[in-house]
This record gives sequence, C-alpha cells and structure tokens, in this order.
Amino acid sequence: MRALRWDGARLTLARDVPDPVAGPGEAVVRVQLAGICRTDLEITRGYLGFRGTPGHEWVGRVIDTADPAWVGARVVGEINLACGSCPACTRGLGRHCPARRVLGIVGADGGFADLLAVPLGNLHRVPEGIDDRDAVFTEPLAAAFEILDQVPAVAGVRAAVLGDGKLGLLVAQVLAGAGADVVLAGRHEVKLARARALRIRTGDPAPGLDLVVDASGSAATLEQALALVRPRGTIVLKTTVAAEHRLDLAPAVINEVTIVGSRCGRFAPALAALAQRRVAVAPLIDAVYPLDDAVAAFAHAARPGTLKVLVDAQV
Amino acid sequence: MRALRWDGARLTLARDVPDPVAGPGEAVVRVQLAGICRTDLEITRGYLGFRGTPGHEWVGRVIDTADPAWVGARVVGEINLACGSCPACTRGLGRHCPARRVLGIVGADGGFADLLAVPLGNLHRVPEGIDDRDAVFTEPLAAAFEILDQVPAVAGVRAAVLGDGKLGLLVAQVLAGAGADVVLAGRHEVKLARARALRIRTGDPAPGLDLVVDASGSAATLEQALALVRPRGTIVLKTTVAAEHRLDLAPAVINEVTIVGSRCGRFAPALAALAQRRVAVAPLIDAVYPLDDAVAAFAHAARPGTLKVLVDAQV
Repeated sequence: MRALRWDGARLTLARDVPDPVAGPGEAVVRVQLAGICRTDLEITRGYLGFRGTPGHEWVGRVIDTADPAWVGARVVGEINLACGSCPACTRGLGRHCPARRVLGIVGADGGFADLLAVPLGNLHRVPEGIDDRDAVFTEPLAAAFEILDQVPAVAGVRAAVLGDGKLGLLVAQVLAGAGADVVLAGRHEVKLARARALRIRTGDPAPGLDLVVDASGSAATLEQALALVRPRGTIVLKTTVAAEHRLDLAPAVINEVTIVGSRCGRFAPALAALAQRRVAVAPLIDAVYPLDDAVAAFAHAARPGTLKVLVDAQV
Repeated sequence: MRALRWDGARLTLARDVPDPVAGPGEAVVRVQLAGICRTDLEITRGYLGFRGTPGHEWVGRVIDTADPAWVGARVVGEINLACGSCPACTRGLGRHCPARRVLGIVGADGGFADLLAVPLGNLHRVPEGIDDRDAVFTEPLAAAFEILDQVPAVAGVRAAVLGDGKLGLLVAQVLAGAGADVVLAGRHEVKLARARALRIRTGDPAPGLDLVVDASGSAATLEQALALVRPRGTIVLKTTVAAEHRLDLAPAVINEVTIVGSRCGRFAPALAALAQRRVAVAPLIDAVYPLDDAVAAFAHAARPGTLKVLVDAQV
C-alpha cells in the first residue's frame, strides 16, 4: 500500500509498504480522508522522535476484522492505544495510560496511508448525516470538547480564546455552543476573518475574564492569559510546547487562578455536535491533496495563514 | 504607642507612634501576640514595597469601637481590607478585591505594635477554649484550609506536601484531617522531626499522586510537583515567589494536570479546627520575644531551621 513515511530526516510517499494485518481485537481501516495537524508538522521537526506513518485525524471504512458487525462501517478512531489494565485504564482514562501508544504520534502507524490497523475499542461509527469532510475533524473537535469535561459550568461565563489556529476556532465554537460569551484573539487577520465568517466574535479581550483558553501554540501566551483572567478564574492550557519558558507564576497564586492542562477528548460529544451541525468545521479546510501529493500537502499546511489541509487517500 | 516600623531600609522599634483611631466601622485592637510569617521576612527584603508596621498574624482585644458588643472581645482578624462594592466583593471574595489593602502587607499598618485599627467586618471572636498561642495561628491555618475550599473531594486521595516550613506542616495536618493519605517532603531534618512529632508522615513521595501541594517557597518545586502528580491530578501552588523561573509546562498539558493557585482563606474553618484541637499549632513555636525585642525576633525567624517566632505585645 501507499503510506507517507517519516524516517527522522525526510518525509516521503512510499508505495511498497506492507498492508497492515488486523491483530486480535483490531480492524483494518481503508482511509478516506486524513487531516494534517500542528502535531504532524512538529513530528517532522523531531517531536517525540516519531518514526513511521503520521496521521491521527482520519475517517475511513473497516475492511477487515473478526467481528462482522464492523465490516463496512464508516469510522473514526480515538488515537490513544491503551494497555487496558493499568490504574488509568481501569478508571476509564486510557488516554492517560502510561504505556499507551498513540496513532501516528507514538509507536503506531497513522492515517496518511491507504490502510491502518486500529483496535476495535477505539472505533466510533460515523452517523450517516456527517460528511467525510466533517467527520475528519472529530479528533480535534473532541480535543475542544475536552474543555467541557474538565471545566464545569461554562454557560454564561465571559471567556476568551487566545490563538486563531484550527483549534482556537473549534474551541471558540464549542464554548459559545455551551453558552459562554466568547471572544477569539489572534494575530492573523486572514484567520480572524474566517473566524468571523463562522460567527465567532474576534477582538482584544478585556481583563476580568472567567475563562481563558490558550490555544496559541506558544508557551509565552500563558503570561497574557494570567493578565486577562479574573481572580479565582480558570485558564485552560491547550498549548503543548515542549520547551522551557521563563514564567512568573506569582499572579496565579495571588489571584488563586486555576490552570488546567487539556489534551485529547472523548469522541462521542464531537460526533454528536457534528451530526447536529452545532459546530462548523468544513469552512476551516484550505485544500485537499491526493495521498500521492501528501508531501506537498504538508508544505501547504506549514504555510502561514493556513488552517486545515486534508489528504485524500481515495484518489 | 510602640510599633515595629519598616522604612524600606531598616526595621526599628519606634516608641512614639501615634495611637490608631477607630474610623467608621472600625475597631482598635490591643495586640496580645503576633506571629512572624515568611511574608514579613520578604517585606524586609523589599516585597511589595511595603512601608509601615508589618504583622498580619495576631490575636488581641477590642478596646475601642462604636459597637459596644465588640468592646472587650478577644479577636483575630482577616487581613484583606476590601472596598465592599466591586464585583469581587459582591460575590463574597473581598480577599480578591482589586482595591484591597492588606494588613501589614499592602497600605495598612499591621500587628507588630501595641494597637492596630481593623474593620469590624474583618474580626472574628476567638472561642474561649483557644489559647492566644493557638489563636495567633488562625491566619496561616486559614490559608491551609483554603485548599479544602478550592479542591473538592480530598478524602481518600494520595497526597504529598512539598516543603517542611510552617505552612507545609499546617497543610499536611489539614489534609490528613480531611481524610487524605499525606506524606510531607522537605530538606530540613530538624523540621521533619518536628513534623513527625505531630504525627505527620514524612519521606520521599512516590509518583502517581492525586494531589501535590507546593508549600516549598521555591518556584523551582513546581517541576518536582509535575513529576509526582498523576495524570488528571491536582497541584496546589502555595508558593508566592515574585520571580521568573524557567519552566516547561508541557507535562501539565499532556497529563491534563490542574494547577490551583492558593493564597488566603476564610477564618471560620481554622477557628473551628483550633477549638476542636484537630490541628496542633503551638508545637511550631520556636520562641516568643517581647515587642521591645521585635527586631531580634525577626533575626531569629530568618535563621534556618526555624518554624514560628512570636512577638508578645503584652510585655
């Protein structure tokens, strides 16, 4: 089969990769669409030392598995491959299993390929009314919904989202849908205009906010968030930057701010929101490249001002 | 009257300070005992640019106020002097009033003196069964109880307290009293031995903890806390160090850790715990100096290995 391979130095489209085989409890999925995430770009800069096929945002069809009820199902898949038996797993937090592999990120090949193997337990059927171009956003949308799992009582709060990237636009919609009064702040006028087209309010947030979400991708933004949040307010950190940053956390202590780290989320609320068209995701798409041109797709995704670039494995 | 004065360069005991006068809604309190806190030592190193009489941990008797019900009452007092009308105040969070003065810390003279003036709304009567030497710990004990106001469901959690200072020993007792399984970690064998005498378990905590409280006084300890807390666990920051520190917060995001800044607390739970002898505070006292020797008391409080030094204004 074809697969986009990262060997630590170069990204290449290989055409002679052996087809994956469904192990016990696994399914082989034929990929339809896969989305390029910021994490994928970081992988090609060395993040986590990943080697293999990246791609953790995908939608496809099950073509082979032991359970006939799954064969032919259109599916998306949670990306954390958990051990299933450790304390984190037994409390339903396989996303935090210390032995986890992560599709396309840690120790497991991902979705920029014709086929990938996924545990059945990770799969979710995609409801009929959701297009592939919407379904491929399930994973990042789940990461946005994760905030609602972690921060109680978002309805009615004054909130800001810092960062006008893909995740920022998804988070702003999710918070607004949960009843928050949200403003999105960013530095790219072209992205802010696209946010406004999705009826997201943009601008410079005033201090005294109940909730500030840092989706900027820059460790330096936490300082700005600390200046914007009210005493006893909450900051959600969506930015994973594996780098040290000089930071004075005294304001967090003096103002008794709660800082919540937030990563992946459950797929179910994201699929429900897509099915009910409560979140607009397809307008974030800049381009769709055939799998054969996946290397060019990565180059496009890295260009400033770009939101989402997809890879189509059906052509 | 006598008062310990900090003028930005020197700490001196002045004997000719005008007696404070009770303004509308205020009481004049004759100080009995006052405790030296780490913040007081920081003030003599320039913290917050304070000038005047420090001292925010004190117990005394009301000698003058318009409301006769208060005259003669033995009292302790909350330290934040709030405006009473801003959004923070109207939601009962005067401790976070942006216009607040703070007794002995920001814009208001404190308790290392014969007398101080305090708003009646800040006063709490000390129940009969609580000695002055216990009552003087109400303020720092309230800061320890603040954690129970901020972190739900402490009962049964595996917790560590980092820091073997006064606050660490109070926090460890409060968490244990709330049903947590607590270990206190510190670097001063003499203080750890005193903690063990209070039946606080000490040692090196194992990773995977539900709750880690940083009461170390060092900004560098957050990194250690991040290594000890389990995914989805909570870190409480009790350390106010107004300094930048190099920090990588990526582990907080990846493990979805919640970091809670925590400062002052309500006095009521602290007084109740003292009245019911659920927390031992008097064993933290190293020495009691007469007010005339308050400068020497500060020098003693700054010596390594010291926990609590008190100043007695009755002699």
